[in-house]
Amino acid sequence: MPKGQRIVLASRPVGEPTPQNFRLEEFDVPAPGEGQVLLRTIWLSLDPYMRGRMSDGPSYAQPVPVGGVMEGGTVCEVIDSKSPGFAKGDIVLAHSGWATHAIADAKPLRKIDPALGPISTAVGVLGMPGMTAYTGLLDIGQPKEGETVVVAAASGAVGSAVGQIAKVKGARAIGIAGGKDKCDYVKQELGFDDCLDHRDPDLAAKLKAACPNGIDVYFENVGGEVFEAVFPLLNAFARIPVCGLIAQYNAFETPPTPKWATALMRHVLTKRLTIRGFIVSDFAGRRQEFLREMSGWVRDGKVKYREHVTDGLENAPEAFMGLLKGANFGKQLVRVGPERA
Amino acid sequence: MPKGQRIVLASRPVGEPTPQNFRLEEFDVPAPGEGQVLLRTIWLSLDPYMRGRMSDGPSYAQPVPVGGVMEGGTVCEVIDSKSPGFAKGDIVLAHSGWATHAIADAKPLRKIDPALGPISTAVGVLGMPGMTAYTGLLDIGQPKEGETVVVAAASGAVGSAVGQIAKVKGARAIGIAGGKDKCDYVKQELGFDDCLDHRDPDLAAKLKAACPNGIDVYFENVGGEVFEAVFPLLNAFARIPVCGLIAQYNAFETPPTPKWATALMRHVLTKRLTIRGFIVSDFAGRRQEFLREMSGWVRDGKVKYREHVTDGLENAPEAFMGLLKGANFGKQLVRVGPERA
Repeated sequence: MPKGQRIVLASRPVGEPTPQNFRLEEFDVPAPGEGQVLLRTIWLSLDPYMRGRMSDGPSYAQPVPVGGVMEGGTVCEVIDSKSPGFAKGDIVLAHSGWATHAIADAKPLRKIDPALGPISTAVGVLGMPGMTAYTGLLDIGQPKEGETVVVAAASGAVGSAVGQIAKVKGARAIGIAGGKDKCDYVKQELGFDDCLDHRDPDLAAKLKAACPNGIDVYFENVGGEVFEAVFPLLNAFARIPVCGLIAQYNAFETPPTPKWATALMRHVLTKRLTIRGFIVSDFAGRRQEFLREMSGWVRDGKVKYREHVTDGLENAPEAFMGLLKGANFGKQLVRVGPERA
Repeated sequence: MPKGQRIVLASRPVGEPTPQNFRLEEFDVPAPGEGQVLLRTIWLSLDPYMRGRMSDGPSYAQPVPVGGVMEGGTVCEVIDSKSPGFAKGDIVLAHSGWATHAIADAKPLRKIDPALGPISTAVGVLGMPGMTAYTGLLDIGQPKEGETVVVAAASGAVGSAVGQIAKVKGARAIGIAGGKDKCDYVKQELGFDDCLDHRDPDLAAKLKAACPNGIDVYFENVGGEVFEAVFPLLNAFARIPVCGLIAQYNAFETPPTPKWATALMRHVLTKRLTIRGFIVSDFAGRRQEFLREMSGWVRDGKVKYREHVTDGLENAPEAFMGLLKGANFGKQLVRVGPERA
């Protein structure tokens, strides 16, 4: 019986995760049962939402149990199949977690069409992060030509796509990112109209200068401080898709609910704001259209992406802890195995 | 030249309006020019939004200038016409303000169809307040059968229609109102499933008990304290149309923007909330459908309404100051003149 490796949740973090919250284990790779396949992981995607799964507070999803394999989207090769739909050598999109091998029910697996792009993009610009950007911006944000779209974490997997799609739609795109290198990349490589450093103590004033006509769409994927700077610049009828709050994921406890309703509701009313939370699965029906459009934009060079690759499953915890602090530059992936074994 | 009376803004209020902020004036009623009509006011509508027009802070509308006639929707009789579209005796919906007579451009006037209901309803259940309820609830709130809709100021012009339309759509309607008489009316006459007194110190606990399945739609037309009780009960995918904030209209200044973004955004995301500000003119295209449906519901007894009538233009300021404190019971009107002179 071949041996595999996996990373399990050793304990629940309090605040920022530490190496002690993870444990690398060896395990015997079993044979697939009827309707199942055996997968060899090639790419593991690391995403901020995983921090939520490590805690057992209230959320829209079940937490990973202590001792359970860390959750995650993967690009895998089928190396054994007891399902008529899949054959050895098929490359599939799975949710098989932080492991070199996994048994999976065949039903939820999707074959990856290599004609759409490199297979790693199935967990990046053509996967969950890309579709989060696409549906959140187009279905909720609805940017019109000449409007101003602001997005934080602008060099990241979601933010980079948000700004570039905004440009495709004729809007101005203003990014916010951490540090000069990322800001330069966002402006020069991705073609945003401007990008500001969220560490700049003058962020509020600089954002105001960068948005002389106000802000029509704020794509909220960070939470906290950036929104404080955005809030006074929102135009009437502004839309605020809310898809992630990475800045809060390490918070020790749910913040209290102070009496902020007054300020909030006054602005919501007088500016006719729309603030709407979503997760990408709320828009599952838009998947085919997303894949068709986004792969075309990537092919035409209108949407570029960058991958930040860490080698080896054993390095996934460190890469993940870095991701939560913004140490990555582009879509964070773990190369668990070679594309062709 | 006949004499008319009008009430002008004598000075801008700081906090609650006082009688000194208003001044009753006599004026010479002029003759209409080409394309104009001379109006005799029958019904003047008093509405909370007027408090906003008395201040010159930032808003979605221009303030009334000091010395200018107080703004307001009216039901009037045309008593002289220099417009081919209108004849003496026509009953029209106008925005001619707190005055017994007014010259008006004919173009924005609308003839009132008396077949739809008593002419006073053109500024009530079949007018701006009714359409605010209809579009805010149906276009933004979108209540589904079996869902729970909560509305504050439930005995008022907007709130009473919101709850009854929710019932038409098969939802549960929970009202919040000030005092036992209003709550009894909301439950027994309007047929809400329950109604709670916002002065009750146990409001939060009682609201929780009244909403055992949580809250799917909160129609925000009050602002402040009620929303604090509603917030923790909101279900995933709850919708919050925001159309008015009467509790804040007398605030001395715009409240500061504290660091509440954390708590807010966490709930918006994990519950996939939609919070959307609107004013009824944003939905002007829905007017015909509103009139057709709402007049049918009123005819069938599915939507009831109550009018709180004050006699005489000179009493409008006192009635308006009472409205801001919740002293009215139902749609506040001023009978400026008889229906038939």
